[in-house]
Amino acid sequence: MVKMYEAWEGFEAGTWVHEINVRSFIKHNYTPYDGDESFLKGATKNTLDLWAQVMELTKEEREKGGVLDMDTKIISTITSHGPAYLDKDKEVIVGFQTDKPFKRALMPYGGIRMAEKALQDNGYTIDPQVKEFFTKYRKTHNAGVFDVYTPEMRACRSSHIITGLPDAYGRGRIIGDYRRVALYGVDRLIEDKMEQKETTRSTMYSDVIRIREELSEQIRALEELKEMAMSYGFDISKPARDTKEAIQWTYFAYLAAVKEQNGAAMSLGRTSTFIDIYSTRDLKLGRYTEEQIQEMVDHFIMKLRLIKFARTPEYNALFSGDPQWVTESIGGVAIDGRHMVTKMSYRYLHTLKNLGAAPEPNLTVLWSTRLPLNFKRFCAKTSIETSSVQYENDDLMRSTHGDDYAIACCVSSMRIGKEMQFFGARANLAKGLLYAINGGVDEISGKQVGPEYRPITSEYLDYDEVMHKYDQMMQWLASVYVNTLNIIHYMHDKYCYEKIQMALHDKDVKRWFATGIAGLSVVADSLSAIKYAKVKCIRNENGIVTDYEVEGDFPKFGNDDDRVDSIAYDIVHRFMEHIRKNHTYRNSVPTTSILTITSNVVYGKNTGATPDGRKKGEAFAPGANPMHRRDTHGAVASLSSVAKLPFIDAQDGISNTFSIIPGALGKDDRIFAGDLEVNFDCSNGACGTPTLFEGLEDNAK
Amino acid sequence: MVKMYEAWEGFEAGTWVHEINVRSFIKHNYTPYDGDESFLKGATKNTLDLWAQVMELTKEEREKGGVLDMDTKIISTITSHGPAYLDKDKEVIVGFQTDKPFKRALMPYGGIRMAEKALQDNGYTIDPQVKEFFTKYRKTHNAGVFDVYTPEMRACRSSHIITGLPDAYGRGRIIGDYRRVALYGVDRLIEDKMEQKETTRSTMYSDVIRIREELSEQIRALEELKEMAMSYGFDISKPARDTKEAIQWTYFAYLAAVKEQNGAAMSLGRTSTFIDIYSTRDLKLGRYTEEQIQEMVDHFIMKLRLIKFARTPEYNALFSGDPQWVTESIGGVAIDGRHMVTKMSYRYLHTLKNLGAAPEPNLTVLWSTRLPLNFKRFCAKTSIETSSVQYENDDLMRSTHGDDYAIACCVSSMRIGKEMQFFGARANLAKGLLYAINGGVDEISGKQVGPEYRPITSEYLDYDEVMHKYDQMMQWLASVYVNTLNIIHYMHDKYCYEKIQMALHDKDVKRWFATGIAGLSVVADSLSAIKYAKVKCIRNENGIVTDYEVEGDFPKFGNDDDRVDSIAYDIVHRFMEHIRKNHTYRNSVPTTSILTITSNVVYGKNTGATPDGRKKGEAFAPGANPMHRRDTHGAVASLSSVAKLPFIDAQDGISNTFSIIPGALGKDDRIFAGDLEVNFDCSNGACGTPTLFEGLEDNAK
Repeated sequence: MVKMYEAWEGFEAGTWVHEINVRSFIKHNYTPYDGDESFLKGATKNTLDLWAQVMELTKEEREKGGVLDMDTKIISTITSHGPAYLDKDKEVIVGFQTDKPFKRALMPYGGIRMAEKALQDNGYTIDPQVKEFFTKYRKTHNAGVFDVYTPEMRACRSSHIITGLPDAYGRGRIIGDYRRVALYGVDRLIEDKMEQKETTRSTMYSDVIRIREELSEQIRALEELKEMAMSYGFDISKPARDTKEAIQWTYFAYLAAVKEQNGAAMSLGRTSTFIDIYSTRDLKLGRYTEEQIQEMVDHFIMKLRLIKFARTPEYNALFSGDPQWVTESIGGVAIDGRHMVTKMSYRYLHTLKNLGAAPEPNLTVLWSTRLPLNFKRFCAKTSIETSSVQYENDDLMRSTHGDDYAIACCVSSMRIGKEMQFFGARANLAKGLLYAINGGVDEISGKQVGPEYRPITSEYLDYDEVMHKYDQMMQWLASVYVNTLNIIHYMHDKYCYEKIQMALHDKDVKRWFATGIAGLSVVADSLSAIKYAKVKCIRNENGIVTDYEVEGDFPKFGNDDDRVDSIAYDIVHRFMEHIRKNHTYRNSVPTTSILTITSNVVYGKNTGATPDGRKKGEAFAPGANPMHRRDTHGAVASLSSVAKLPFIDAQDGISNTFSIIPGALGKDDRIFAGDLEVNFDCSNGACGTPTLFEGLEDNAK
Repeated sequence: MVKMYEAWEGFEAGTWVHEINVRSFIKHNYTPYDGDESFLKGATKNTLDLWAQVMELTKEEREKGGVLDMDTKIISTITSHGPAYLDKDKEVIVGFQTDKPFKRALMPYGGIRMAEKALQDNGYTIDPQVKEFFTKYRKTHNAGVFDVYTPEMRACRSSHIITGLPDAYGRGRIIGDYRRVALYGVDRLIEDKMEQKETTRSTMYSDVIRIREELSEQIRALEELKEMAMSYGFDISKPARDTKEAIQWTYFAYLAAVKEQNGAAMSLGRTSTFIDIYSTRDLKLGRYTEEQIQEMVDHFIMKLRLIKFARTPEYNALFSGDPQWVTESIGGVAIDGRHMVTKMSYRYLHTLKNLGAAPEPNLTVLWSTRLPLNFKRFCAKTSIETSSVQYENDDLMRSTHGDDYAIACCVSSMRIGKEMQFFGARANLAKGLLYAINGGVDEISGKQVGPEYRPITSEYLDYDEVMHKYDQMMQWLASVYVNTLNIIHYMHDKYCYEKIQMALHDKDVKRWFATGIAGLSVVADSLSAIKYAKVKCIRNENGIVTDYEVEGDFPKFGNDDDRVDSIAYDIVHRFMEHIRKNHTYRNSVPTTSILTITSNVVYGKNTGATPDGRKKGEAFAPGANPMHRRDTHGAVASLSSVAKLPFIDAQDGISNTFSIIPGALGKDDRIFAGDLEVNFDCSNGACGTPTLFEGLEDNAK
């Protein structure tokens, strides 16, 4: 059944008319833009007024210790709150998570204790009835997980060999295709979901029952989405008719998601090129001026900056700040060869000027050598001025994910509406190495955490013996890790299902089972030290190796030296092979990532001394970075080492935090024209405040 | 680890000391009793006072329209209410479901609408917050089921070809081994459950996660059970030390179950022989007198009579009254050949005299030709005087279930603590036959409910053609029926799990997937009419056959005539074979039953005219009964027809409601000595008010 809407007038038809397929719509209708930024308009008076109001509220929030207001009783759902505004007369894009700006919602499904603690830590008290309900009558994700954990899993969690698990907070990393709401209107999406429900397999196996129930939940969530939009005076049952509606519909869809889920990363997707199709049409028809369109974009981005969640200090310590990871992916190249930069790509980045720099939304440029030169220059300039742009390697990701993927969180790529991720935090491979040496005994607590394999008893470490034992220990670690994640994702689906986000996905979703590695360069250097230098074990009174003495020098990761780089490669590959040996929940496809952007500090703190000479408690390098000050052969050598890591074994992303002092780059600005890309997926910076271009300002002028 | 308790002094050890095994305890310690009832004692003053109080409250309840009081706000859990008493000083066995006797608890997990309606229909209003909570934030079994049903399932439900499904009420039919609490104390049971949790399979497949979560829920329920008992002043963490404690501990365990679940049948199990071991020891030691022991039993039974649930008029119509099915199985024969009648068997039945006749608890004698003569006589006498004893064929069930099974509801046999049942209500096979004739079109609504198979177009029905089509239609019916039940039991486990009942089961439970047949004799007679007489179709204006004219006579089920009895046999067998072709939830073992004891009236009401001459809306015969007034060859012939049905294909039970006028039985009382048993499982009577011996009183005097 093909339904043509008036709202689609002027658009070129394609597959997207017959089925829910935003990519087809984009492909058929977008206009690549090769020009420069001269068309951009500054902030309107309304925008400046609103932003001043935001700044005032931000100040108040900071003065109150980081949180301005919190819900203690109303449980956040898509329709839990009436409309809220900063200044209704001035806002062209509307919608807040609760009944007023800056007020954080109460979301107990992930875990009532976490919700309660987030309130307590900010001086609020949870409503006792809510607490009772969610303790006695409505189980939470967290309660479910802890009912199932084995003592071994708990021990691994306590000893921090597996850490940061999403068992007490929302897993996030699911991107609804929020654009669908704008393109099709909610009614058409409901029809589609009903059709999906009609066409499940007919024998009622448990997985069929599950998907049928989920589809019903999704349909209900879509109905609620309409209701929520209606409370703001918008009927989003039908497609958006112009730019303003397209942005507003898209934002309502995203808003529904953040009303429902307090996920670790609530990313937006890849909306700019999509929205550009509407603005191009509207400009042509004279419906809106460039200034009006920029105002819409500014207000949209302003709203995204005000997404807030109730969180605990522990959470903020792990994630370094209070990130929402409202990641928006911009640019990239289409698989037909055309670049996907549009005027809207500029307008999105331009908000960093109109509203000032900010870490959220996490504006991420999908970088390709084939992006137009003007845009590359504009990116570089914006980075220099704002330090607020993230870059990722589109040339690499396009080959596995096509041209309608987006980044969830910092580096996790997924096809929008077609793939989602089961987020899996990280295993501490450095600690795993110490377990191999100590026969599963934790070097800090002295407790037997891992299996009681034979420890190493010699004074000096032998490379082959260590590798043999490490491989076994990695196999054990991979197994307990994957099993732990299986429990977490089973329970998240059961007690904290992402209804509206999954409503904006296809029926048959590819699920990535994400795992993660921490401490890679520590492991590589440690094994290199064992192999190429002499490493002596220092044992405590219980015979546990708690320190090491390194005699002689050894090759270190980050210097483009194959002797150690190949060890790093091998470890990633082996660990991933061990991961793959395990059953993963819901037919998900295992991947791993090397991307501890900030939590590397926490991991290091909980890990004893390592054979590379790193002292107990010392921070790891972030992500796949070489250890601090060990990459002594220059930037290119350092990057080359990282670039050798096997992307196929770490498909969820490899991050490298990379700062350059200006002098290292020569005297012209050639670097900004695209020469710096290396062949790996580089999340260059901490939590939405990238630093790649930091310090380059002088140079670029 | 063998732990011996002081409470066990004087008991013979056995496997039961090493593992949770009540059967082993009974086998090693019970004392068969061959004597007569002369040892029995009447009701004490306290008993009579309490019962007078109960009668007064019952009168008040009746005057108030059937319900005295209801909870509108407190959600029933094991620990939701403080202690309640009739008269604390007089009660030797204590415990009520809510904070006062006769007050019905609020149990919304099965379905909030059902709970709300039960309140409304009795003039109460549900607390709006509870309603909101169970509508928005805590899904119920009923909501889950309806999210998944297909349009076909809904149509089958509306047309009543599948009917009485436990999708809006608790499935029941699960018997916790409540005796375990008395024998072992709760702490030992918790230890056992913890050990079970430690020994699950180690890969976290979803079924492993599920059982681990369930075991955690069970352990929590056991902790709550202790807490609830403590509120009455009893520490049940340790084993019961005497008769009074054994009864009290057992009752507390059962009480926890009925505080948690409003199941369609909340049966007690097989407790009398177990309790007898304690009373035999106590009498020997002079701890209690016979009068005291009878008082305990009277008070126990009194409590069981006061189990009450909040229900709707529709529920009561389907189940004929307001039954709880507190079925207690008494007597039977051990597989070592000894009968299992004890003094306690007498004492239980004697409550019918001390307290007067009553349908609950549903006292069920597991009848065997080898029961001692004195007991048989006593049963017969009690039946004559009270019409309150149910009989079931132990000789038949023992061969498949051993000697520690009990009856759940009216005829469903299961090993206590080792087997449970997924209750499945019934498929209307008579309507199925009409669908075969009309190509899946419902003869009453005219709607296409079944598959669009070719209807019969001839004026006269041909047996082979009808059988061919009927077999296809049965196959379809079995498939949609089993799939519907798969959804129901998945959701019941998910949203309304029987924590405390399953806590009193082994870890690896055999699950029976119960289905049921309604209208068997109508089908048999209809097919016989088609085969042996001439049946003419009367069609309405749409070509749907809505009536039949039978020309000539035909053999009718219930006359020991193989021509038709073999048809009945064949139908049961074929239908069960079709059932077996389907996937059943949670590796459950499919069975069927033929036991519509009262709902046959409702089924008949919703079924059009049938080829046997039965008119539209006319009641079916109950269970496996021959149709009314068609069994013209006497009692034995009627029973013989039923006895031919294949028990192996209807292992969940075959019921036959059988009334005899005194004259038919001759002039001596020989019949009460055991001559009447026929070789089938006979639930002789409606809902706990059996009528087998009704009208025989004169004869027996």
